[in-house]
Amino acid sequence: MSDTNRQWILASRPEGKPTEDDFELAEGEVPEPDANEVLVRMRYLSVDPYMRGRMRDEESYADPWEVGEPMRAGVVGEVEESNHDAFEAGDVVTGNLKWAERSLALGGELTPVDPDLAPISTALGVLGMPGRTAYFGTLEVAEPRPGDTMVVSGAAGAVGSVVGQIARMAGARVVGIAGSDRKCDWLTDDLGFDAAVNYKEEDVREALSSACPNGIDAYFDNVGGEITDAVFANLNVDARVAVCGQISLYNAEELPTGPRKLGTLIEKRARVEGFLVGDFAPRFGAATERLGQWVSEGELRYEETITEGFENAPAAFIGLFEGENVGKQLVELD
Amino acid sequence: MSDTNRQWILASRPEGKPTEDDFELAEGEVPEPDANEVLVRMRYLSVDPYMRGRMRDEESYADPWEVGEPMRAGVVGEVEESNHDAFEAGDVVTGNLKWAERSLALGGELTPVDPDLAPISTALGVLGMPGRTAYFGTLEVAEPRPGDTMVVSGAAGAVGSVVGQIARMAGARVVGIAGSDRKCDWLTDDLGFDAAVNYKEEDVREALSSACPNGIDAYFDNVGGEITDAVFANLNVDARVAVCGQISLYNAEELPTGPRKLGTLIEKRARVEGFLVGDFAPRFGAATERLGQWVSEGELRYEETITEGFENAPAAFIGLFEGENVGKQLVELD
Repeated sequence: MSDTNRQWILASRPEGKPTEDDFELAEGEVPEPDANEVLVRMRYLSVDPYMRGRMRDEESYADPWEVGEPMRAGVVGEVEESNHDAFEAGDVVTGNLKWAERSLALGGELTPVDPDLAPISTALGVLGMPGRTAYFGTLEVAEPRPGDTMVVSGAAGAVGSVVGQIARMAGARVVGIAGSDRKCDWLTDDLGFDAAVNYKEEDVREALSSACPNGIDAYFDNVGGEITDAVFANLNVDARVAVCGQISLYNAEELPTGPRKLGTLIEKRARVEGFLVGDFAPRFGAATERLGQWVSEGELRYEETITEGFENAPAAFIGLFEGENVGKQLVELD
Repeated sequence: MSDTNRQWILASRPEGKPTEDDFELAEGEVPEPDANEVLVRMRYLSVDPYMRGRMRDEESYADPWEVGEPMRAGVVGEVEESNHDAFEAGDVVTGNLKWAERSLALGGELTPVDPDLAPISTALGVLGMPGRTAYFGTLEVAEPRPGDTMVVSGAAGAVGSVVGQIARMAGARVVGIAGSDRKCDWLTDDLGFDAAVNYKEEDVREALSSACPNGIDAYFDNVGGEITDAVFANLNVDARVAVCGQISLYNAEELPTGPRKLGTLIEKRARVEGFLVGDFAPRFGAATERLGQWVSEGELRYEETITEGFENAPAAFIGLFEGENVGKQLVELD
């Protein structure tokens, strides 16, 4: 790594699907840590679908990024210099930092990562935000019960793949929806999903009818749009829907429309609830511990799609909207 | 009343808004009660929006009516003859009977009405199914809390008018949406609503913004469609939406479409839940008692729109979709 410090800047607000032109690679000096600050060298950068919202000039739960300013992401890195008592050079840490080869952070913004527990990249995936999202969204919102049929969309992603495995542990029959046969095979053969639907090849509504002969009791939605319409057509009485993401709509420039669904909710006495993992922050510790235990016992499997090289971060992000990743999409720096 | 017995038959399944041609008045013999049966002379017939669903040839929570067969409704009537121990001639009863001047019912299908407690017509309104729908939908689904702002659509109807008053008792600031200035004045001047929006005269989204300066914490939806879209645009974090009815969509022949809302639910961590009052049947007694107490103490006010004459029942039903009723719409027989 050179002495200059590269970072990605938001060059322009995308219209529709982001392109590489919306990102600009800038070079600068390596920053010097001030009092209580830590200099972190990035090892892994997390790209996540929700970041598309931060590229818009709209208020939402995550503040918009400014054009011409650096973007931020979950990062795992190594401490190079520390002016904070809790960290020393060589420590592995995670935090929400700039898309930059080296960043400064206050000690309080960083969480230590124990490299002996699990590969450090998992702090951005199964043992990080996506894993905790799956944990709370499944157990606190979708609430699968033994004997339930639970469907998860975006099932081969970082969140969905964990959702399905937790729902299986809770006694549910789990059906995943994903976008390739390779992903579907991974879900059923490696992760223990009971069935999987390839939405690019099958009529989702019909495929769900046959994969869910007793209807759908719980649904974890990562994608929205027509896939979700198909799930709603198969909901059972007392169904619960956890709304986590709507990736199929994130690049829409017009307000997306679709069939009105509230009438279905009456007939089915169904509950639909959106959630943000951040609202569960006081319980992150317990969730991460439980997830780590499941991983170490082999109860919870995960996969990572690694894009090599800091310069390829925008491509990795854009690939999320093509469904190129299996499991957690990361960017790895040398 | 003549010795012949008139009853309304479903003549045809409506396309779009029902017309009087969809109903046929048939004459027959007055039926004779068999063992355990009771002959009931109708005094009041309840017409309710949900009946529109029963006119379709589609499975739903209420079975479809058959063309050429009598329709059914909540009825208050007087026992003319009884072969059941629990009832005698002159008793006032309520039950789900045919749209007929006289009907037979098994004793177990009837509930006694005490004419000394309240006007007997209230067994179809504030102390009947609509009142209980408001009670459970408000307290168990929308869950207004002290200091909340709660909005109710169809606010001047049989259900909505009770919803708003219960939400006020629960400590919420209540804003009603209704379709005329007369209705809005009734809500604010007589029922104690804090504000009312006339959706036929105002831009609902803007009117709600100014009537709900702190946003909307709870919403009781009787109407769906564009009014509900306007409410969703003003929801607060942690909002609850109780979906009771979608009257604006009941006459649609095509699947209604509108803006997709699940993304809003994520940002607002909002919960949307459909319900049917029948699911609360084991607790109807307690609800009716509480509602009756509020009525007798003057805490809960109600109004009835009475259409005179059995022959006018279809017109009364059709009028529901024009918003002609204030409070509970009933048909009264001589």
